[in-house]
Amino acid sequence: MQKNQQTAAILIIGNEILSGRTQDKNVQFIAEQLSNMGIVLAECRVVRDEESQIIESLNELRRKYTYLFTTGGIGPTHDDITAPSIAKAFNVGLTRSEEAVLMIKNHYKEMNKVLNPNSFIMADIPMGAKLVTNNLSGAPGFNIENVYVFAGVPAIAQEMFNNIAPDLKKGEPFSSKSIRIFVGESRVRGILIDVQNQFSNLQVGSYPSMSDGKSWLTTIVIRGQDPVSIEMASNTLMDILAKNEFEYKEESE
Amino acid sequence: MQKNQQTAAILIIGNEILSGRTQDKNVQFIAEQLSNMGIVLAECRVVRDEESQIIESLNELRRKYTYLFTTGGIGPTHDDITAPSIAKAFNVGLTRSEEAVLMIKNHYKEMNKVLNPNSFIMADIPMGAKLVTNNLSGAPGFNIENVYVFAGVPAIAQEMFNNIAPDLKKGEPFSSKSIRIFVGESRVRGILIDVQNQFSNLQVGSYPSMSDGKSWLTTIVIRGQDPVSIEMASNTLMDILAKNEFEYKEESE
Repeated sequence: MQKNQQTAAILIIGNEILSGRTQDKNVQFIAEQLSNMGIVLAECRVVRDEESQIIESLNELRRKYTYLFTTGGIGPTHDDITAPSIAKAFNVGLTRSEEAVLMIKNHYKEMNKVLNPNSFIMADIPMGAKLVTNNLSGAPGFNIENVYVFAGVPAIAQEMFNNIAPDLKKGEPFSSKSIRIFVGESRVRGILIDVQNQFSNLQVGSYPSMSDGKSWLTTIVIRGQDPVSIEMASNTLMDILAKNEFEYKEESE
Repeated sequence: MQKNQQTAAILIIGNEILSGRTQDKNVQFIAEQLSNMGIVLAECRVVRDEESQIIESLNELRRKYTYLFTTGGIGPTHDDITAPSIAKAFNVGLTRSEEAVLMIKNHYKEMNKVLNPNSFIMADIPMGAKLVTNNLSGAPGFNIENVYVFAGVPAIAQEMFNNIAPDLKKGEPFSSKSIRIFVGESRVRGILIDVQNQFSNLQVGSYPSMSDGKSWLTTIVIRGQDPVSIEMASNTLMDILAKNEFEYKEESE
């Protein structure tokens, strides 16, 4: 990793992912956004709606990485325990934010809906936290120190992420080139080692897949923060592949 | 959790998930299988192809839960470091398994393909590990103590899981009933608390979604290991919903 490289982790809070009922959709979105901002997503965790597990993971991840993003568990029902758990992790109280109450009220007004007082539970946030706005549901997420707390519903999580994105310290964006080779991984092992050694500032990843349930393909992904190196490395790889008469194809990103 | 409840974690090893390039597909499959076997999937982690991060997560998770399943990083290229990292975590050497060599040879023979000697790198496993067979690629995964090491390619990971499934200690299968209510979560908060309190052996989860970008729905998932309780709890919930004139619909599982 580069010096001064910003890093991040995602903590997904929700039994529904661990029971297999729901396929997570937030990791891939946040991962792509961070990549474009030059922030390394170094780790993800999925934990249950359980206070001790949330607190333990949260404290570990927020200390280890520049940023921590959480998704899930900020609704108004009994199984939504993210806000009080985070307050405990930071050793602060939970307080009803008047600003959040107003956001929720305004949202219901705009939507022409009857407001249920239980909705204000979503205005209870850890002391000292700043609100993260969201136009879809009105109920905000929040930010405390380096931790950003988002809803689990993907459309809302995405809006919340986009709203705080300008506040994140960015680095050189990551980009990549992919080259698909029409042989199995074993055949190109030596070639990949050569390319990786020549371009130690890049990640040369090798991903096998089956084309028709029988023939192996290998997709090489050359990734990093220096587009010129990436171009050079992928040209170097393609030259060697051509010399060795391997069939390959550049993939569009 | 029940007494003697078996628990599990999944450790996904792979930069491609953290860069956003690839959407993980293994968690949901393994989660569903474990659920049917009565094993609680308590945590998932995604880490990079980095030895220290793999070792640290592996050691933490294998000590914490009954079973640990890993996916990814067992191919023959330079970025496949799962087997040597696991050997280090267990403080044992890596050894070429003659049985695995034979499996790889036989597979190539059956597929009528020329075998590349690099393929045998996939026969290098930690000392004392048992092989986990796989008919799709020939190259096996392995099992050491309570850790099961699978490929990342979903079709192969699934076959490997299915092959070791008979060895896992099972519990009462989890099952669930889902009831969709055509109002937002806030409106049913009190009702859900009542049902959860009446059936403390079950998990009553509440999951909001938007039907048309405007109207909120709430899906209640009642989950547990006692089908009779689940039936009773869902009937109790539907009775209360009917009495309160909420529109709802039972979902097929």
